[in-house]
Amino acid sequence: MAAAAGLRCYFPGSTIGSGFVRPSSSSRGRRAAAVAAPSREAEPAASLGHRTRVDFPILHQDFDGTKLVYFDNGATSQKPFSVMKTLDEYYRSYNSNVHRGIHALSAKATDAYEGARRKVANFVNAADSREIVFTRNATEAINLSFLLLDKKLFSYFVYQILLTVAEHHSAIVPWQFVSQKTGATLKYVGLTKEEVPDIEQLKGLMSNRTKMVVIHHVSNVLGSMLPIEEIVTWSKRVGAKVLVDACQSVPHMPVDVQKLGADFLVASSHKMCGPTGVGFMHGTFEMLSSMEPFLGGGEMIADVFNEKSTYAEPPSRKSWQHISMKAFVLFQMSGYMVQHLPKQITVLLYALSMLRTFILQILQKFLISSTANLVLFANPLFQHGVAIRSGHHCAQILHRTLGINASARASLHFYNTKEEVDVFIHALKDTIDFLTSQH
Amino acid sequence: MAAAAGLRCYFPGSTIGSGFVRPSSSSRGRRAAAVAAPSREAEPAASLGHRTRVDFPILHQDFDGTKLVYFDNGATSQKPFSVMKTLDEYYRSYNSNVHRGIHALSAKATDAYEGARRKVANFVNAADSREIVFTRNATEAINLSFLLLDKKLFSYFVYQILLTVAEHHSAIVPWQFVSQKTGATLKYVGLTKEEVPDIEQLKGLMSNRTKMVVIHHVSNVLGSMLPIEEIVTWSKRVGAKVLVDACQSVPHMPVDVQKLGADFLVASSHKMCGPTGVGFMHGTFEMLSSMEPFLGGGEMIADVFNEKSTYAEPPSRKSWQHISMKAFVLFQMSGYMVQHLPKQITVLLYALSMLRTFILQILQKFLISSTANLVLFANPLFQHGVAIRSGHHCAQILHRTLGINASARASLHFYNTKEEVDVFIHALKDTIDFLTSQH
Repeated sequence: MAAAAGLRCYFPGSTIGSGFVRPSSSSRGRRAAAVAAPSREAEPAASLGHRTRVDFPILHQDFDGTKLVYFDNGATSQKPFSVMKTLDEYYRSYNSNVHRGIHALSAKATDAYEGARRKVANFVNAADSREIVFTRNATEAINLSFLLLDKKLFSYFVYQILLTVAEHHSAIVPWQFVSQKTGATLKYVGLTKEEVPDIEQLKGLMSNRTKMVVIHHVSNVLGSMLPIEEIVTWSKRVGAKVLVDACQSVPHMPVDVQKLGADFLVASSHKMCGPTGVGFMHGTFEMLSSMEPFLGGGEMIADVFNEKSTYAEPPSRKSWQHISMKAFVLFQMSGYMVQHLPKQITVLLYALSMLRTFILQILQKFLISSTANLVLFANPLFQHGVAIRSGHHCAQILHRTLGINASARASLHFYNTKEEVDVFIHALKDTIDFLTSQH
Repeated sequence: MAAAAGLRCYFPGSTIGSGFVRPSSSSRGRRAAAVAAPSREAEPAASLGHRTRVDFPILHQDFDGTKLVYFDNGATSQKPFSVMKTLDEYYRSYNSNVHRGIHALSAKATDAYEGARRKVANFVNAADSREIVFTRNATEAINLSFLLLDKKLFSYFVYQILLTVAEHHSAIVPWQFVSQKTGATLKYVGLTKEEVPDIEQLKGLMSNRTKMVVIHHVSNVLGSMLPIEEIVTWSKRVGAKVLVDACQSVPHMPVDVQKLGADFLVASSHKMCGPTGVGFMHGTFEMLSSMEPFLGGGEMIADVFNEKSTYAEPPSRKSWQHISMKAFVLFQMSGYMVQHLPKQITVLLYALSMLRTFILQILQKFLISSTANLVLFANPLFQHGVAIRSGHHCAQILHRTLGINASARASLHFYNTKEEVDVFIHALKDTIDFLTSQH
């Protein structure tokens, strides 16, 4: 990944935007100088966040006078006007079932649906738009990937499905079902002492027993990124299929399915500034052309493809350069964030490394190890307008591996600004002071 | 059903609206007098269609100067401004994952989601809003119903699942899977000579072997309505569970789940003037409280419930009276439509009977029996702006039973007007003349 190669700790400078003002360390209040910018920040105008956030109406609101700082993008990204407009136009002028009707509404809906498929194909550089299958979300896409596979791949207990402990529940549970039904064995790859998935262990586990490798691209908890191309090479060597959960990477960096070479790759529109309720699976043409037996048995499944009347409109990002730039700025902001975090946090925070991306995970170790405390933690943060997420992030196996019940996650998107990072840092210090004084 | 009991052939009169002008029989053109009304028809103002259609922007458009007559409501209904506004507000101000976040956006999304659940519960008169489970559509709801059931119900080939030949594919295929997996036998109830499902045959097939009855409320092809209460009584007598596919009834008439008494009832938002991509299942509390084993095994399924960030906003219909009135007017319009259809159609059309509702099915028997001819049929109709649907309507078993490959369907909703029915009738005559002259 070009973006990953460029990952360093960057500091306030020209790329992020000029005219940046850090809140004074004495301003404990909720309206620090940097926060008081108008809703459509006039200056600094140069940064990506400032330029793009004007298209996201949800970002420009306050709660009891405190401006919203939305850092829960790992869960759900926000939608620009263009997506809302597309949905509105759809309902206003051509809402209709696709692939079924003869009348003009249905024809227009079908055209738009197929147009969206081509856009998604371009977005991930698929060789053919027919390699993109729309699903309701990534979970459904993962379930579908199993249905497309030859069941004999999993028919003996000596056959193995490799996963990492850091997979999202949505990627784990379907394969648990497969294991229960077919007898194939699930093998989980653990973490290194740096607390990232141990790809050397993964490599070591590969054998001709390995039939399937289920792997995330970027972890939704650790922020770590895995070398998919290498993993695919190892997998092909032993004849295993590879499914990549790209939910956290596709929204943030160039993802080239041809370059990665996996059999399946799944992602979810709602994390990509697109509408809720749509996901997609990329499957190689070779893999998808083995679909007939499945479709023959289940007209319902054809219906699942055909009945969708709403469609994913990926964010209108013009080129790979554009996306790379966004990823680059996000890395810079994350780096900046880590540099300025309160000391109590920094020591317990994952060190930013080549493997980390834009997800900042604040482990709860510095507080008493219980979810209740994380609620206590997220609540006062929102008093500062900062929306983050705490819990197990659908990664309980990972949290058990890390020896904790829950964690808090601040996740950024391209529309976030350095000023917001400062509000977050300030709020964090305030919250830690408050919570420490309670003990 | 009160509405069904009132079903008669009604003619132009006070309830439908006054000031109605039929197009002259010589006006073969595409802009008959009745069609030329302005987009927000000022008169006749009294009818339900005229009063409500102002809220549906999609209805007020034309194609090459021909006004749209949308009669494909059985496939997808249109959305009023209130639904678009709700979706827009959601994306503008509180788009967020429900049931997960602590911050205010997530709390507001969760409140709205639970509010929608209460509205749906009220809409079908559920005893408790916890009896409503949101799904992605009715298909998913049907699949879910099986997952909730004790698998022992289906574990022997002597055990039977009763369906009718008129079920939608979405209601058939999941039970075909169940049959293939468990060995239980599928038994299909046929049609009477009036070509409606033979409920006497259904009653006769009931025995202590019957474990499940899967039945539609209103047929999406025949327009027939079945006496669910009686069927439930018979089913309970032999200890069978009942699943009601209410996709075509809930949008059009009062449906009271407590009165019907079925174990499960499913419907789809997109046919109810609500957003696309949402459906619901009503399950009795007794049935849903047996869910633990299922949820325990599949966190994914909890996620399926939890991850939905968009929510169904049922149309803002104020009372049962209001809905009854709408159903009543629809029946009147259907009756009016049948009375005025071209003779060539009328003789082959299903006679309007006590069992028929608002779906008008024009069989292709009067043309050569092939789908190609129905395309020929639907195309020239759209030249008059009339959008209907042709095909097998996901009911191939029914079409085979009827001895045809396909049919054409004109399906109305409360926002349609008598003037539109006239345009349709006129277009139909024109089309038949055109097609007849081709042979």
